[in-house]
Amino acid sequence: MRAAQYIGANHFESRVIPTPALPDDYIRVRIAYCGICGTDIHIFKGHMDARVHAPQAVGHEVSGWVEECGKNVTGWTVGEKVTVRPLDNDGTCNTCKRGFTHICEHLNFLGIETPGGFAEFWDVPARLIHRLPANISMQKAALVEPLAVACHDVARAGIEPGQLVVISGGGPIGMLNALVARHAGGKVLISEINEARIALAESMGFECVNPLKEDVVALVRGRTGGSGADVVMEVSGSEAGAKLMTELVRPRGTIVIVAIYAKPVPVDLHKFFWKEIKMVGARVYEVKDYEKAITLSNNGEIDLDKMISKVFPMDDIQQAFEYLTSTPDAMKVLIQCNEEK
Amino acid sequence: MRAAQYIGANHFESRVIPTPALPDDYIRVRIAYCGICGTDIHIFKGHMDARVHAPQAVGHEVSGWVEECGKNVTGWTVGEKVTVRPLDNDGTCNTCKRGFTHICEHLNFLGIETPGGFAEFWDVPARLIHRLPANISMQKAALVEPLAVACHDVARAGIEPGQLVVISGGGPIGMLNALVARHAGGKVLISEINEARIALAESMGFECVNPLKEDVVALVRGRTGGSGADVVMEVSGSEAGAKLMTELVRPRGTIVIVAIYAKPVPVDLHKFFWKEIKMVGARVYEVKDYEKAITLSNNGEIDLDKMISKVFPMDDIQQAFEYLTSTPDAMKVLIQCNEEK
Repeated sequence: MRAAQYIGANHFESRVIPTPALPDDYIRVRIAYCGICGTDIHIFKGHMDARVHAPQAVGHEVSGWVEECGKNVTGWTVGEKVTVRPLDNDGTCNTCKRGFTHICEHLNFLGIETPGGFAEFWDVPARLIHRLPANISMQKAALVEPLAVACHDVARAGIEPGQLVVISGGGPIGMLNALVARHAGGKVLISEINEARIALAESMGFECVNPLKEDVVALVRGRTGGSGADVVMEVSGSEAGAKLMTELVRPRGTIVIVAIYAKPVPVDLHKFFWKEIKMVGARVYEVKDYEKAITLSNNGEIDLDKMISKVFPMDDIQQAFEYLTSTPDAMKVLIQCNEEK
Repeated sequence: MRAAQYIGANHFESRVIPTPALPDDYIRVRIAYCGICGTDIHIFKGHMDARVHAPQAVGHEVSGWVEECGKNVTGWTVGEKVTVRPLDNDGTCNTCKRGFTHICEHLNFLGIETPGGFAEFWDVPARLIHRLPANISMQKAALVEPLAVACHDVARAGIEPGQLVVISGGGPIGMLNALVARHAGGKVLISEINEARIALAESMGFECVNPLKEDVVALVRGRTGGSGADVVMEVSGSEAGAKLMTELVRPRGTIVIVAIYAKPVPVDLHKFFWKEIKMVGARVYEVKDYEKAITLSNNGEIDLDKMISKVFPMDDIQQAFEYLTSTPDAMKVLIQCNEEK
């Protein structure tokens, strides 16, 4: 089979590799599209060589079709549309036992330590497969995984209709957060410094503010009788964002940490005390977030069209990574791994 | 009347001042005891001269008796035992309207900007007076205010019976947190660097660990199958405490920010993401916390005896502050403002 493998820093290549034997509890998925995630970009840059066993196909944002079922697998039909929830938890740690299987203490994230979806076929434990509606767009279905991240983030925020939600950082996950928060009834304001991203967000009907040009805190306070935003989604991962979040949020408001911070940054804990702020972390997704993302990606209630910046064939994966790392306003880039039938 | 006034940095003095006219909606409280709070120590050191109008009596942790009622005040009997909830909110800001009157956006904290309880009499709005049980110890009743802080902190933590609760910082508020958390069913571990405080906490039946001598994180992980503490109460206000809290807490655990941080400190936001940590600030108390503190201070269910380190007469207030600021293991120091009858 063909697989687009990570070879080493700044180097992906589409190669023919032996098709592995299908384990008994697995489903072999013929991949339609596999999106490039921020994690994949970190892999591309060589930051994750300790976890990835090069040469290896990575990738985990997929749509596809059931190609073959392992001999213990029942209930699935060859050819039906599916996606993969790439969280292989152990089921035995304290966190799994508490019901938080998505943040299992020994989580195996498929497509990082183990092979992923930039490939003709991807063999995945059957319990991690989700059925897709028959009429779903396979390109949009490849956004189910990142959309489930946003569904989880918004669920953690507990947004109520009419609440002012500031999304701090308008990259792909920030934009998906904005779409889901708006769908949940939030009045969304996006804080972003990249003008091309701002233009894209505005074309999707979002109000944006550039914190390098405008005083976001004054703007938000002006609209809220001096109180601040109900919810701040911190998606920037920046020190400036960590400063902004405690200034923007109202007394008893909620901050959600969506971003992956590379190192500790100064945080104004006095404001947590003074305003009795709540802050929660949000990582990946639960089963219910996946089901919601499948529904939202298919029912037209949120518009994902502009979220797909470009589609590359598998053989051009190197160009796809180069495009994405040199185009700051690009949102999702998909790798097409098989022709649609 | 006599009042023990803040004169300027490092200087309190007991003086005779004119007794003010009692406003119509106020109750004049004859003060039995008034405790010295950390805030009062900040005032003593001159850190809060911008807010305190010297010469002025400060103090807000009182027990006393109704001395006189303003002409609009009904329902109170001269001589009955009372305490004061010193939070004068405006009732009109967005935060008050949401029901969080205790963190009113324009809160007037009685005894800071306006005169306080280190005095023979303290005139207080009647709506901020709480009735005390007739048989309560007036010394313990002077602990109701700081005990209400701890009741609020523990309520914000949402402690469930059997949960492992780490109290980071064993000063007066940390110790009261420990007492209330234990009463709520928590298994309490106190992390403290002062050996005299550790000895006191151990004499009250608490397990303590000195993070300068022992690896607290390894200890907690060893007891929790590697997961971490259910709840961490951050009462130290130190940079080391801010580092420890994210290491100690388990996935989906809770951190409560009780301490007053003087400036932003590095916080590992990645751990919030990774472990989906929840962090909430806790400031002062709500009416329900006050009622709970009154009950707890009187029913013997928690032992407050060792929390009162020393009692000084009002005329010796300068010595009281000097004692407290030079005795790190001192817990509560009370100023006696009138003889008990």
